Amino acid sequence: MVGVRAELKALFGPRALLSPAEKGVYRYDAILVGPEPLAVVLPETREEVQALVRLARKHGLSLVARGAGSGLSGGAVPEEGAIVVAFTRMARLELDPVGRTAWAEPGVTTARISEEARPYGLFYPPDPASWRTSSLGGNLGENAGGPLCFKYGVTGDYVLELEFVDSWGEVHRLGRQAYDLPGLLIGSEGTLGLITGARVRLLPLPRYRATLMAAFPEVGALAEAVSRAIALGAVPARLEFLDPVSVNAVEDYLGMGLPRGHALLLVETDGDDLEVVEEELSLVEETAKELGARVQRAKDEREAEALWRARRSVSPALGRIRPKRVNEDIAVPRSELPKVVREIAALGEAYGLVVAQFGHIGDGNLHPNILFDPRREREERVWELAHEIARVALRHGGVLSGEHGIGLMKRAFMEEAVDEGTLEAFRTVKATLDPHGLLNPGKVLP
Amino acid sequence: MVGVRAELKALFGPRALLSPAEKGVYRYDAILVGPEPLAVVLPETREEVQALVRLARKHGLSLVARGAGSGLSGGAVPEEGAIVVAFTRMARLELDPVGRTAWAEPGVTTARISEEARPYGLFYPPDPASWRTSSLGGNLGENAGGPLCFKYGVTGDYVLELEFVDSWGEVHRLGRQAYDLPGLLIGSEGTLGLITGARVRLLPLPRYRATLMAAFPEVGALAEAVSRAIALGAVPARLEFLDPVSVNAVEDYLGMGLPRGHALLLVETDGDDLEVVEEELSLVEETAKELGARVQRAKDEREAEALWRARRSVSPALGRIRPKRVNEDIAVPRSELPKVVREIAALGEAYGLVVAQFGHIGDGNLHPNILFDPRREREERVWELAHEIARVALRHGGVLSGEHGIGLMKRAFMEEAVDEGTLEAFRTVKATLDPHGLLNPGKVLP
Ligand SMILES: Cc1cc2nc3c(=O)[nH]c(=O)nc-3n(C[C@H](O)[C@H](O)[C@H](O)COP(=O)(O)OP(=O)(O)OC[C@H]3O[C@@H](n4cnc5c(N)ncnc54)[C@H](O)[C@@H]3O)c2cc1C
Ligand SMILES: Cc1cc2nc3c(=O)[nH]c(=O)nc-3n(C[C@H](O)[C@H](O)[C@H](O)COP(=O)(O)OP(=O)(O)OC[C@H]3O[C@@H](n4cnc5c(N)ncnc54)[C@H](O)[C@@H]3O)c2cc1C
Repeated sequence: MVGVRAELKALFGPRALLSPAEKGVYRYDAILVGPEPLAVVLPETREEVQALVRLARKHGLSLVARGAGSGLSGGAVPEEGAIVVAFTRMARLELDPVGRTAWAEPGVTTARISEEARPYGLFYPPDPASWRTSSLGGNLGENAGGPLCFKYGVTGDYVLELEFVDSWGEVHRLGRQAYDLPGLLIGSEGTLGLITGARVRLLPLPRYRATLMAAFPEVGALAEAVSRAIALGAVPARLEFLDPVSVNAVEDYLGMGLPRGHALLLVETDGDDLEVVEEELSLVEETAKELGARVQRAKDEREAEALWRARRSVSPALGRIRPKRVNEDIAVPRSELPKVVREIAALGEAYGLVVAQFGHIGDGNLHPNILFDPRREREERVWELAHEIARVALRHGGVLSGEHGIGLMKRAFMEEAVDEGTLEAFRTVKATLDPHGLLNPGKVLP
Repeated sequence: MVGVRAELKALFGPRALLSPAEKGVYRYDAILVGPEPLAVVLPETREEVQALVRLARKHGLSLVARGAGSGLSGGAVPEEGAIVVAFTRMARLELDPVGRTAWAEPGVTTARISEEARPYGLFYPPDPASWRTSSLGGNLGENAGGPLCFKYGVTGDYVLELEFVDSWGEVHRLGRQAYDLPGLLIGSEGTLGLITGARVRLLPLPRYRATLMAAFPEVGALAEAVSRAIALGAVPARLEFLDPVSVNAVEDYLGMGLPRGHALLLVETDGDDLEVVEEELSLVEETAKELGARVQRAKDEREAEALWRARRSVSPALGRIRPKRVNEDIAVPRSELPKVVREIAALGEAYGLVVAQFGHIGDGNLHPNILFDPRREREERVWELAHEIARVALRHGGVLSGEHGIGLMKRAFMEEAVDEGTLEAFRTVKATLDPHGLLNPGKVLP
């Protein structure tokens, strides 16, 4: 390994040779911790990425791509002896307001794209709740969604061109023609190539927004209301849900007068005409009322912002109930939501563990969070429950991951989730694009 | 081959053993003609497709998937000794209005999805001009677009799940998770798998539509107007263009009073509020006028329909100028449109051939059509010109195919269009999913 260090030093100088304390930061993402990496490299150009791939090949080392490390499936967590490639310094961003596109390097923070597009009346729709920290590279790695994805779609829907370095160190820059290799790279969690840039689509900013909060006595009625309003033709931009556990936690945290013990639905409609935007919100309002909800419409931007702040505070708020948690991420058909939410709540009770549920309910995307204290509650039981929750999703025709990816966390589960033929096809794809197992080994595939 | 015939007969009965006259129909698509296939099979179930793949493997025969044969790149044209798999009889369609999806077999005609969704207030956006004949399987094979794709996106953007039979005869039914194999199959022109079904997304029908026609003295000004209006924030649903040659041809054909010698822009806006829909159209109207256009707004549905009929009549109208034509299909950045349209017109003149241009101009997608009479004009020169046109696109940062695919027609061109590394990656994908070259050999890859 001395040879590797010397070579890394020659190629990248001190950037590659962080102290053990510094390297410690690169052991974990937002859910899992791994061993200390052999080295952490912060490349600044695609040529440096190429050189790194060639070096890793020569020495038989593995490379783990990393954006902001905000992932929730362990995708960026290194295995023993791996080199972490952190893309934070590759963060150039060029806007083309006329063509309504942006060329962005992987280290660009998600929120920055919309911020820089705003003066031109444009925005970049994919908005994971983590968007102030998460990177475009990580969003591409996980094909991240966000509250806006019900109306606007996920990261991959906005990619026009993708540039990546393959496991031989070659650069490719591809549009989405003939064989859609960019599509194959998107969502592959760093296991098929290292993304060094993307051209993404921007959309015109809608002129108006309107927000409401509906408080339901019970989660099933909330799910029912969502499903009915959508069937009636509502296409809200955001459609978020908090169960009573989450509501109480946020209320303890912010003290903003949320209705404790209720299930909350937050809805935003958007568009270029205030009347339509209001009308569409009214459709949701009426449906919610029919199902027993109390509805509060935000009177202005400030009130709306406060409601959305409640949603964004779920994560820190839950952190105050128990020091640790496992964030599940499932997606089920909307029609199954009432049953699924109730079954998960019952499972939590049966295990004697606190489970909070929230998520992008318009897409049937739920984030059941199991909260625990490792000093008092056995972590194995927590993971057992997480697996039971995933099984509930599969039983109801859902999928293993709504948007956080498979990573380390769910790879063992792939065998239950997809048939052997599909797994075989996945393995073939991996073996073809990365025959030496250089890129993020041990992720995605069981 | 007697063994093959006997086996086909045992498996499929007379359906597989069409007479030479009947088989003749399966030699061509809408642009190229090939040899007579060995056999034509019309499977009715996925199990029959599987049996056919196994039979073809055993005998070392190739399989050419075929939908309606309306393709414009020769994708469904058989090679010598191939079996054509025509999906016309696999045409089951099941709607789920609440989930806003449809499960469709490949033989379902594109337009039928929207027709059956209409009573539920829903529609299926991808709308190739050929949608009354083209099949979903062919749309998936080519990742077809259409006039609505500027606002709504292409076929692949609506696919939630894909079912296909691989070259070993195994069936896979996949969502778009982990490695996006459905995305790889979409646009692969029958070379990676035989698609036997798809779950597609449906959208709520917009309540209002408004249409205008703008007549420009010159094509460059038209392209400029499109680019400016879009930069100002207009998101029309349809944005179609006809050059003066096309306009004259349609006027000769329909006699509806179109302004001969002008370049025409047809624009439709849609949405749930009449005012916004009208406003958005006004934005385009003003920009067009600034650039010297005469603008006519459709007063009602009937007038709008007449204008769109003009657009849809381009194909038959051009057929009256010369008996044959080669339909090119390029896409270039919008900013390059004025230059590209002019260069192509000049090339046509230099070759002494009639070139008509029209297309989905909002996406920069042009269809330069070379019209010719094989008795008087040498077909080689026509193809030479077609290649020159493709080169114009590449020189201006465009791509080889906007939406019709590579097929037979453009495969020789792939070498100029993509770098060797990308081609190598494409070949690897093909060799991995179809190692025996069973599926539509000789297409896409040079
Ligand atoms: C509070 C909170 C809220 C969240 N909300 C959402 C949400 O609403 N929606 C959602 O989808 N996710 C959400 N997430 C999860 C996470 O933020 C997303 O998955 C995000 O896309 C990760 O980005 P990152 O830059 O942090 O990536 P990382 O965690 O660093 O990496 C993620 C994966 O991408 C790979 N990768 C990173 N860069 C590259 C590259 N250049 N080339 C190839 N592969 C690469 C990594 O190897 C890894 O497998 C949330 C997380 C938190 C902590
Ligand atoms: C007048 C006219 C207008 C047109 N306008 C447009 C337009 O606006 N936009 C546009 O994109 N195209 C347009 N086209 C081209 C054509 O209609 C589209 O490419 C359409 O998608 C082809 O569908 P098809 O069913 O006819 O496919 P086919 O021509 O039969 O096949 C097309 C390709 O798909 C493959 N394929 C077919 N079925 C399957 C299957 N089940 N599994 C795997 N592969 C399969 C075939 O092997 C072939 O490679 C137009 C054509 C005409 C003649």
